[in-house]
Amino acid sequence: MTDSINERTATETIAAIATGDTTAEEVTRACLDRIETRDGAVKAWAFIDPELALAQARSLDSLDSSDRKGPLHGLPIGIKDVLDTADMPTGMGSPIYKGYRPVADAASVAILRAAGAIILGKTVTCEFAGMHPGETTNPHDATRTPGGSSSGSAAAVADFHVHGALGTQTGGSVLRPASFCGIVGYKPTYNIINRAGLMFAAENLDTIGMMARSVGDVDVIAAAMLNRNMTTPLPAGAKPKIGLCRTQLWSAAQPETVEAVEDSAERLIAAGAEIVPIEMPESFATLSEMRNRINDFERSRVLSHHWRENREKLSDHLAGQVENGTAMPYGDYREAILLASESRQHVDTVFGEIDAILAPAVAGEAPEGLAKTGDARFQGYWTILHVPTITLPTHKGPNGMPVGIQLIGPRWQDELLLSVAGWAENVLIGE
Amino acid sequence: MTDSINERTATETIAAIATGDTTAEEVTRACLDRIETRDGAVKAWAFIDPELALAQARSLDSLDSSDRKGPLHGLPIGIKDVLDTADMPTGMGSPIYKGYRPVADAASVAILRAAGAIILGKTVTCEFAGMHPGETTNPHDATRTPGGSSSGSAAAVADFHVHGALGTQTGGSVLRPASFCGIVGYKPTYNIINRAGLMFAAENLDTIGMMARSVGDVDVIAAAMLNRNMTTPLPAGAKPKIGLCRTQLWSAAQPETVEAVEDSAERLIAAGAEIVPIEMPESFATLSEMRNRINDFERSRVLSHHWRENREKLSDHLAGQVENGTAMPYGDYREAILLASESRQHVDTVFGEIDAILAPAVAGEAPEGLAKTGDARFQGYWTILHVPTITLPTHKGPNGMPVGIQLIGPRWQDELLLSVAGWAENVLIGE
Repeated sequence: MTDSINERTATETIAAIATGDTTAEEVTRACLDRIETRDGAVKAWAFIDPELALAQARSLDSLDSSDRKGPLHGLPIGIKDVLDTADMPTGMGSPIYKGYRPVADAASVAILRAAGAIILGKTVTCEFAGMHPGETTNPHDATRTPGGSSSGSAAAVADFHVHGALGTQTGGSVLRPASFCGIVGYKPTYNIINRAGLMFAAENLDTIGMMARSVGDVDVIAAAMLNRNMTTPLPAGAKPKIGLCRTQLWSAAQPETVEAVEDSAERLIAAGAEIVPIEMPESFATLSEMRNRINDFERSRVLSHHWRENREKLSDHLAGQVENGTAMPYGDYREAILLASESRQHVDTVFGEIDAILAPAVAGEAPEGLAKTGDARFQGYWTILHVPTITLPTHKGPNGMPVGIQLIGPRWQDELLLSVAGWAENVLIGE
Repeated sequence: MTDSINERTATETIAAIATGDTTAEEVTRACLDRIETRDGAVKAWAFIDPELALAQARSLDSLDSSDRKGPLHGLPIGIKDVLDTADMPTGMGSPIYKGYRPVADAASVAILRAAGAIILGKTVTCEFAGMHPGETTNPHDATRTPGGSSSGSAAAVADFHVHGALGTQTGGSVLRPASFCGIVGYKPTYNIINRAGLMFAAENLDTIGMMARSVGDVDVIAAAMLNRNMTTPLPAGAKPKIGLCRTQLWSAAQPETVEAVEDSAERLIAAGAEIVPIEMPESFATLSEMRNRINDFERSRVLSHHWRENREKLSDHLAGQVENGTAMPYGDYREAILLASESRQHVDTVFGEIDAILAPAVAGEAPEGLAKTGDARFQGYWTILHVPTITLPTHKGPNGMPVGIQLIGPRWQDELLLSVAGWAENVLIGE
């Protein structure tokens, strides 16, 4: 265990508070000190009020041990700024919502509080969880994008500002920034984590996910939110059966991603896994286009009010999506919904034979520049399928930047995916 | 066509404005006059500002005919008070939200405005679209419930205050009040009508629907919201194949519902339909319980913030649901989600053989008293299946109160359901 409180994992931190080795206030101060030192460069936070965070910590510390019922007691968590918070502004990454103060916490935020978490602050999001970036930089290289749209959540966790964070994924907005910043990003099965109080991007896709520095840490947060136990590790000597799916996007994978996937497969085999190649039907090659259709049709409806009242405050990229979605005939949208639905049922059958799928997480390292957040297709391919996915920070690219792999599980079997991912984390990264 | 402007159908009204036979202002005044006369007894409206409605109407009337692009140009619509409106308070049927003013219209409201509709006002909802009633009475008998939770939308449409209204259904909240009040209630396929800006009850169930006085009227509203054409009527001489599904709830059907279903089946056969009995698997008998689990688990998360901050302002019934959902282990919830998912796939296969299902809509007439809104099981059975459903006001009970039937279509084939429903409407009610 590291000596720096803010560099510990979430599970270590929770345990240290429970045993009295530290307090919620000490943990919060360590996070705030790191933010004070680093956030001028990283710019991960859209809003942070140290006193508000410390007040939450002191309140938790003041509880008798018999009243400390929350499984996340004392753990600071960052919240992507598209999730409502009653005590902090919620800016949606848009000038339209500058200073906006919701009347209630989002379900996900309130549940974290009920579980004993400290809501440390709001993390920078791309405009309405889309592609138009905020100011956040990659903590490994400030000239490179942290990815998006959960940019601040990924950068804050990677740079040890906080132990875990919530993000959202409509295309690739949890896994891509997690891979670019070198952390674990977990997108649960669609509609497991309650979305009340989330500013929707596209409701048939939007999924709230967790970002942290280990599989156990995303698991402890998800378990608390769902009132379930922590995932059971695979038994010693387990030989998981993993499908290797390069997807129809493989030609867009850069050498570092090819290396990450192939090297991971070899090492997992060496550790006992059975790896079988998986081919998806040809129709899956259209999933990216179908995802874009659903995104644009639904975004144009979500933003219909602002399209009338605040059109000049939308980025050109988003305005183009709204225009496209507004003009889209229902039949085109319905075709995308139906293909997605059929594809999900096909994937269900694929999982009859295997425990998890190994796939590329990203095209490659975080690209240079802050104007774009990278290629979302490697993540979006699975988002539209509603399956749970996770990225592990297993590799580095030619510039020393993180490159993750992606593991995918069957719908509604997130605990199986997390078990396999925990096993793979031990094999590929070590404990 | 009736001479009373407010008693015309939506499609008649739109046509009359388009031809210059009337104006949006005249239509709005006719609605407001009716409300002035009747709403002291019916209490359908949570908020109405005549000047605000008339201003919308005048603005639409001032447009040149070439700028009148909206398919609902000039049509007044009522909005259930769980959908955000930027220019009217949104009270959620709860003292917690008294006077609450959202910053933006819900997607569904903004889309209606973009289609040229007049947002006439906000209609009374049960507390958070649940079971705890508002003050609305049944327009056919003020001592009886209008049903819920879209109580005000149903009563306002039935009593000719407005031509159409939006409701939401999580259990039976569109079809039950529609049946009790004697109008058409349409619950589309789950997740077709965008839910951004809807206060969620339970997001795996919540569906925005339309209430009006004819099948054509719910269709014209849905078509405008989805950017699709109006549904094509069945061709002359069509012989739709309809499954008659009494469901496992049949023993709870009162004589008037038995009569409505059996009489409808006979008359549809006489008009050329083929009617085949449909039995659902035994596992479907648990759907009501599974729906309750999903409802309570998800409601407890949606209301987690208010459970902490405003617990004393929740009704006892809702508080019980939140307590149940908070204590529910994830495994119980997941079991309900999985059974629902499997059941949906089974229903998909049933629809391979038939065009629509005929089923009971309600247990019977609207019960006496205003303290409860009636039995939601006959509607909730289908809500959890995510299929589109519609009720038609075909029959009367022993006390002269309306009793509807329910028609059900395959998921994502709402236009087929509406075609069959339009045909059945002609047969059973007449044009």
